[in-house]
Parts: sequence; structure tokens; C-alpha cells
Amino acid sequence: MRAGNALDRLATLLKTDMDAVNTLILDRMQSPVALIPQLAGHIIAAGGKRLRPMLTLAAARLCGYRGERHIALAAAVEFIHTATLLHDDVVDASDLRRGLATANAVWGNKPSVLVGDFLFSRAFQLMVEDGSLKVLGILSHASAVIAEGEVLQLVTSNDVTTTEEAYLEVIRSKTAQLFAAASRIGAVLMDRPQAEETALEAYGRNLGIAFQLVDDMLDYSARQAELGKTVGDDFRDGKLTLPVVLALQQAQGDEPEFWRRTLEDLDQTDADLDRALALMAKYGTLTATLERAKIYGEEARQALANFAPGAEKQALLDVIDFCLERGY
Amino acid sequence: MRAGNALDRLATLLKTDMDAVNTLILDRMQSPVALIPQLAGHIIAAGGKRLRPMLTLAAARLCGYRGERHIALAAAVEFIHTATLLHDDVVDASDLRRGLATANAVWGNKPSVLVGDFLFSRAFQLMVEDGSLKVLGILSHASAVIAEGEVLQLVTSNDVTTTEEAYLEVIRSKTAQLFAAASRIGAVLMDRPQAEETALEAYGRNLGIAFQLVDDMLDYSARQAELGKTVGDDFRDGKLTLPVVLALQQAQGDEPEFWRRTLEDLDQTDADLDRALALMAKYGTLTATLERAKIYGEEARQALANFAPGAEKQALLDVIDFCLERGY
Repeated sequence: MRAGNALDRLATLLKTDMDAVNTLILDRMQSPVALIPQLAGHIIAAGGKRLRPMLTLAAARLCGYRGERHIALAAAVEFIHTATLLHDDVVDASDLRRGLATANAVWGNKPSVLVGDFLFSRAFQLMVEDGSLKVLGILSHASAVIAEGEVLQLVTSNDVTTTEEAYLEVIRSKTAQLFAAASRIGAVLMDRPQAEETALEAYGRNLGIAFQLVDDMLDYSARQAELGKTVGDDFRDGKLTLPVVLALQQAQGDEPEFWRRTLEDLDQTDADLDRALALMAKYGTLTATLERAKIYGEEARQALANFAPGAEKQALLDVIDFCLERGY
Repeated sequence: MRAGNALDRLATLLKTDMDAVNTLILDRMQSPVALIPQLAGHIIAAGGKRLRPMLTLAAARLCGYRGERHIALAAAVEFIHTATLLHDDVVDASDLRRGLATANAVWGNKPSVLVGDFLFSRAFQLMVEDGSLKVLGILSHASAVIAEGEVLQLVTSNDVTTTEEAYLEVIRSKTAQLFAAASRIGAVLMDRPQAEETALEAYGRNLGIAFQLVDDMLDYSARQAELGKTVGDDFRDGKLTLPVVLALQQAQGDEPEFWRRTLEDLDQTDADLDRALALMAKYGTLTATLERAKIYGEEARQALANFAPGAEKQALLDVIDFCLERGY
């Protein structure tokens, strides 16, 4: 199956629900302060995959939910995600996202920070209206962990002694926590047994880790341009992602000094990215990163083992394929 | 009464509660990611007045509350406030707060944005543990309105056509909304009649407006240095606060062009702040700003009229004096 098509079954299955989520998102990002919907609309309309809200919708259906509450919770999940994207782009000083200029590149950092805060608040307002303290607890905890992961990523940036374990902690927090929470609340909606909640959380967590591993591999891959992103952003930022961490583990001769100069001092020439790519090829670290992603993808698959077969389960399994196949 | 002493009665009355709030704040800003408590501790320990959490504590006691829930809610209020301060300082590129280097000046903008997000999430976790959906609703709404106010302030900056009404909308949102919410939740804790909730909200809202009016006047006052702040920060940022808006209303001759050049173009020489101060003196706009603050202070006083006399009520009235007397 082609990566571009792996989400089709899910998107078709959830079309009515997802249309309702999109309508609610547009409605709830409104404000008398016109710059807010302008800026929020820019990033929300930029055509994200809506992967996280789709997880909430699909998990709710998998658990037999047939009401309307999942719509607002999926919108809340997307608002939290969008808020973190806006703040991320400020932190990374990014110019491009999904092939379009970032909000901070268009309007500057200031409104991006503040509109992120606004969307984050809106997410909590949606949850309060829904009225489940358990969901509020899951998503407020997830938000705190995401922020911790982002700070940890900042701390490990430009530090060539960063371990594989520290890297995994970063992506578990900054990415996998929201995938896990988004999936788990599907079971919470139906008040399903703890085992199902835990299973859906494990699905989301492992899927999120696989997703981020592939993302970090793609940052060094020629396929990046197709995704509307530039190649080597993480290298220029001095981020210690797995492809680099694995190359550092095996570095010999003048290679440790090369990584130190380029990633710690950020003293880089045009040729340095080429050498970094050559070293990753020499040690096969992009392939190794993808192999690890497959292991987490398999964990995600196993987590769904006890759910009955059906369109929802198949669609959630498709999502794993989608996340992995982006890497080919 | 001297401004420095006007908070004494309140601080003495609430000492045990406030100690518990401070302990909880220190406990809940912890994280395995060491930079988070370092940075959060820097701003939290910098010796703010803890005005907003004191409002929650005093309002709860005024309503007869004798339990422990107000401690966590006061801490949540302070976390929300601290998060907005961290993001504010990034947005304003401020170097000094309360006479100390800002977090963004010490650690850079990136961790300030992210630690703000962390504290904001922690605030919601505290509220979820408390378990009142009504309090969650009040404070999530307040957070959204604060963000709207901050964006509106950004939009009106460098715009000399900003009206007094637009200015008031900014300070009602960015400052008074949290004062109002912090006061109101005292009544919510005791499930008091709607009239008391509304009265405490009106008290907080008017107090917050008075507080911000005095703050904006002080930015142009010689007393600023005593508060550890530089004079004319708002002028240099091109912010359209009331002292300037009122001077613009009465501007004649070359004065409109002076304000346009300095505030819109931000084309300023050293002598321009002096001329701005001279124009404010000419039209008495600092005095007029303080007069308006007194009117809102009186509204705040009236809002408490139906509460029984006692130590808590007197302390809340003292807070009004404190906010106004900073201006003398």
C-alpha cells in the first residue's frame, strides 16, 4: 500500500465525524480579535493530516461509542496539537511547515505565542463543556508532559553526549504522549474496562514513537522535499535525533570532532550536511532508525490484539502502516 | 496609609494559607527536567506580591470557607499568572521584571515559552484534582480572554488611532479578567448565591482595571525606578496606553506627527521620551489616568457593600488602597 493511501480507509470511515470536527474547529477558533482566527486559520487550514483527532474518533468508535461527545474532544486534541506547533515553530525559528510559510514567519513570533495560548485555553474550554474530569485529567497531564519533552529537547540540543535513552524520552514526551492520550480517551468516553483504556493508550504511545522516529529519519531523507520541508533542519538546529545519536555511537577518527563542531558549536559549512549524510549512510543509521520504528509499530499492532476485528480496528492498523510507509 | 503597608493586613490575615500556597507552588513546579524548576523558580521566587492568589484566599474566607481547597486553586491562579508573565516578557522582549533579569534575558526565549506552557498545564492539573468543573470553566474562559487581550494589545500597538475604549478592552481582558476570576472562585467554593459570585467578580474586575491603569501611569513616572523598572518601556514599545491615548486626543500643532513618528514608526531619539513626558504633563494625562483608576477603585469598593464587615472584607478594601496608592 502506498503511504499516501494508507490513511484513506480511516478518512473515509470517519468522514462525517471529521467534517463535524473541522466545523467545530473553525467555529471555536473565532474571536472578536480578528488576528486570532487569521493566524489560527493559517496553520489549521494548512492541511495537516488531523492524525491525532482521527485517533480519538476511531478509538471511540472501536469502543462502540455512537454519541457526539467524541467530536468536541477530537477538536480539543487538535487545538492542543496546533498550540504546540505554533510554539514549536517559534522555538525552532522555523520558516516552513507543510510547505507553507509558518505563522511566525508571516506575523512574527509575538502573535504566534499568544494565539497558541488562546488555542490551548479553547481546548480546555471544549473539555469543560464536555464535562469529563477524567478526560480533563488525561489531557492536562499530557500537556504538561509535552512541555517537559520540549524543554528536554532544548536541553539535549547541541549536546553530543545525548544518549539514545534521552532521545527516546524526548519523543515519548513531546510526541507520543498526545497520540496516547488521544487514543485513550476513546475508551474513557464509553467507560470501557481499564484494560481497553491501557491497550488504546499503548497503541497511541507506540504509534507516536514510530511516527516521530520516521519523522526524524525523514529530516535527512531526499523525500523531505516532497513533503514541503527542507532537508537537514535538525542538523542546522543541532538537534540530537536518533540518526545522529547512532552515528555518534559508532564515530571514529575525526568523526566525533566533526559532530562536536557542527552540532555543539553550530559551526557549519555547506559541505557539512553532505558529510553528515555520508556518515549516516556509512553506519546505516537511517535504516536503523526505520527498523526501530517498525518495532514500535509492531507494538502498536499488538496493543490492538484483543479488540474485535472490524472496520475501525483495520483503519487503526492502517494508521501504523501510514506512519511507517512515509519512511520508504 | 503608605502603599507599602496597605497589603500588610491582608498578608498577615492570610499568612498560614499563603505559606501553604507557596509550598504547593514549589512542589508542583518540580519536574525531572531540571531547567523547568530553575526557570520557574527564578520568576516565582522573584518576589511578586502574590496579589491574585491572595484574592482567591481572601474571597473564600469572606464567603465563610474554612476548608483546604482554596490553597490549590490559589496556586492554580498564580501558575496561570506566571505563565502569562513568561510569555509576556518574550513578546515584549523585556530584560527586567521586578528589578531582576527576566527569564528570557537569562535563558533565552525558547525555554520561557515552553516553561510557560508547562505552568499553564500544571494550573489545569491542580484544578482537575480539585474537581470543580465550574472553577475549570471560569479559569479556562479567563485564560482564553487573557490571550485575546494580549493579541489585541499587540494589534493596537504602534497605532495612534487607538481609542480609549480599545485600550480599556485590552486591560479588561489581559489584566482584569484574572483578577475577576480569582475573586469569583472564592464564592464558587462555598456555593454561595449568584449575587455574591457576581459581586466578587465585579470587585476583582474593577480592582484589576484600577491596578492596570496605575501600572500604565507608573510606566511614565519617576517612581518606576523605585519599583525596579525602567521608565518609558511602553513608549519605546509604542504601546498605546491611556496616558498617551489621552495626550493624543488633545494633540495640536506638530504633536500628532510627534506621536506618529515615535509610536508608529518607533523612530525615537533620547530627547523624545522627555518630550512625551512634557506633553503628558501639559495635558495632565498621568493625573487623569490616576483619576480614572480611583473611579474603578470606588466601583470595586461598592461591589463589596453587601458583605458583612470583618477582617476579610477590610483586607480586600485595603487591596484597593494598595493598588491606588502605588500611584502617589
